[in-house]
Amino acid sequence: MIISPCQGRIDLSKLDTNAKLGLDKDTVEKQMLDAQQRVASLQHKLWAENKRALLCVFQGMDASGKDGTVRDAFFLTNPDGVKVTSFKVPSAEELDHDFLWRIHKAVPARGEIGVFNRSHYEDVLVVRVENIVPESVWRPRYAQINAFEQLLAANGVTILKFFLHMSRDEQRKQLLERIHEPDKNWKFNADDFEKRKKWDDYMRAYEDALSETSTEHAPWFVIPADRRWVRNYAVAMIIAETLERLDPEYPRLKLSELEMERLLSQ
Amino acid sequence: MIISPCQGRIDLSKLDTNAKLGLDKDTVEKQMLDAQQRVASLQHKLWAENKRALLCVFQGMDASGKDGTVRDAFFLTNPDGVKVTSFKVPSAEELDHDFLWRIHKAVPARGEIGVFNRSHYEDVLVVRVENIVPESVWRPRYAQINAFEQLLAANGVTILKFFLHMSRDEQRKQLLERIHEPDKNWKFNADDFEKRKKWDDYMRAYEDALSETSTEHAPWFVIPADRRWVRNYAVAMIIAETLERLDPEYPRLKLSELEMERLLSQ
Repeated sequence: MIISPCQGRIDLSKLDTNAKLGLDKDTVEKQMLDAQQRVASLQHKLWAENKRALLCVFQGMDASGKDGTVRDAFFLTNPDGVKVTSFKVPSAEELDHDFLWRIHKAVPARGEIGVFNRSHYEDVLVVRVENIVPESVWRPRYAQINAFEQLLAANGVTILKFFLHMSRDEQRKQLLERIHEPDKNWKFNADDFEKRKKWDDYMRAYEDALSETSTEHAPWFVIPADRRWVRNYAVAMIIAETLERLDPEYPRLKLSELEMERLLSQ
Repeated sequence: MIISPCQGRIDLSKLDTNAKLGLDKDTVEKQMLDAQQRVASLQHKLWAENKRALLCVFQGMDASGKDGTVRDAFFLTNPDGVKVTSFKVPSAEELDHDFLWRIHKAVPARGEIGVFNRSHYEDVLVVRVENIVPESVWRPRYAQINAFEQLLAANGVTILKFFLHMSRDEQRKQLLERIHEPDKNWKFNADDFEKRKKWDDYMRAYEDALSETSTEHAPWFVIPADRRWVRNYAVAMIIAETLERLDPEYPRLKLSELEMERLLSQ
């Protein structure tokens, strides 16, 4: 793997948001298409096999590039087999259930790749930092999440979790750049700036979440996200390698070739 | 439009499955990427605008290329904003509701493009040909479908319906070609051959469905599907032109540029 999964206690300040992972930009630009093709061809096999699923969870601060990373990693896949769910502020109906209720409904079916743009982790991140529920409610959620993800894993869902790790300075640069771009600046709202003020609180909440819920069956990867090309390539490679390890296979023919030719001649 | 929507009584035998629509293959191969880029950039605007939705319904006999057409038309779009639903044989729970219940749940939200790979039209096609319900049940469905689609249209959903019109001979060719391709032949099952035997019954059911439900708010397009390049280009162009007519716009900034710069300097 281009990056190892998180293990033990995570200290985000020690993980370089600007790392190149030994890559250089020219080579990555040449190899990206190859990685995308590997993902797409393995996705088609996974879908045909119709036995197992892959779930990719994306978390990161605003402007860390969740949308762009997802678009790039699944660039050549068939949209029929890749289901993206963007979790927003919960609805009244969702709030009337436990926090995993709406998540469970969005879990990918056999054969599918599910992508979560934000996820149940918001319930131990924003919910914690903004004091939406007390610690006695959010702290037990780590164990609840681990048990839930273990259930999925035991039922054929391979889980990859990506934290797009961007510096506060880079966020400022990204947001400044966007101010004058009408295809991007409409996303801004006052809330983003509120979260930005609480950057350190968010980092602490992320450190706890990553430390408590990076498991063998559902590992977290901290992706250096200051450089777009490093970020997108690292994620695509981890997905490609994971699918290769799953090694999905096209199902066997239900009818013999001879039988099919006979039926078609009618 | 490259093809006019269906109007009045449809006679499929008079519509050439092999038509070129005045196109030539070399030009189309050069222009396809441009059509895909138009669809993708308009999809992004539709999604940003978050006011209206587009629903594309795909119907056609086995091997008419529904999967491939969808993949090609939405090749460059963001998977987050394009939701594909493949309707299969209804579940027990779905059968315990009216036939539009599961369809309504899958209607695209504001900002989304919804794609139906098969649809509620199966309930006046396979259900009719295979005698799953009596005529007294399926015939009133045309009016029920029209009323349902009118509700969607009145609520900001633009609807395009594509019938991929392939000849029985071309289906035979396609299926024969696939017999020796392990990435495709696993799809075959005995049921496909049963449907193939009843080709004329299916065409009659399609003619009635197209004639009864091609409306101003939800038009049907009969796409010549014997030539893959004609089929895919025609569909991509109709989608691109429809999105252009909708002319979605990026939302206005919620904050002034000055205000944003001030907030970011903190």
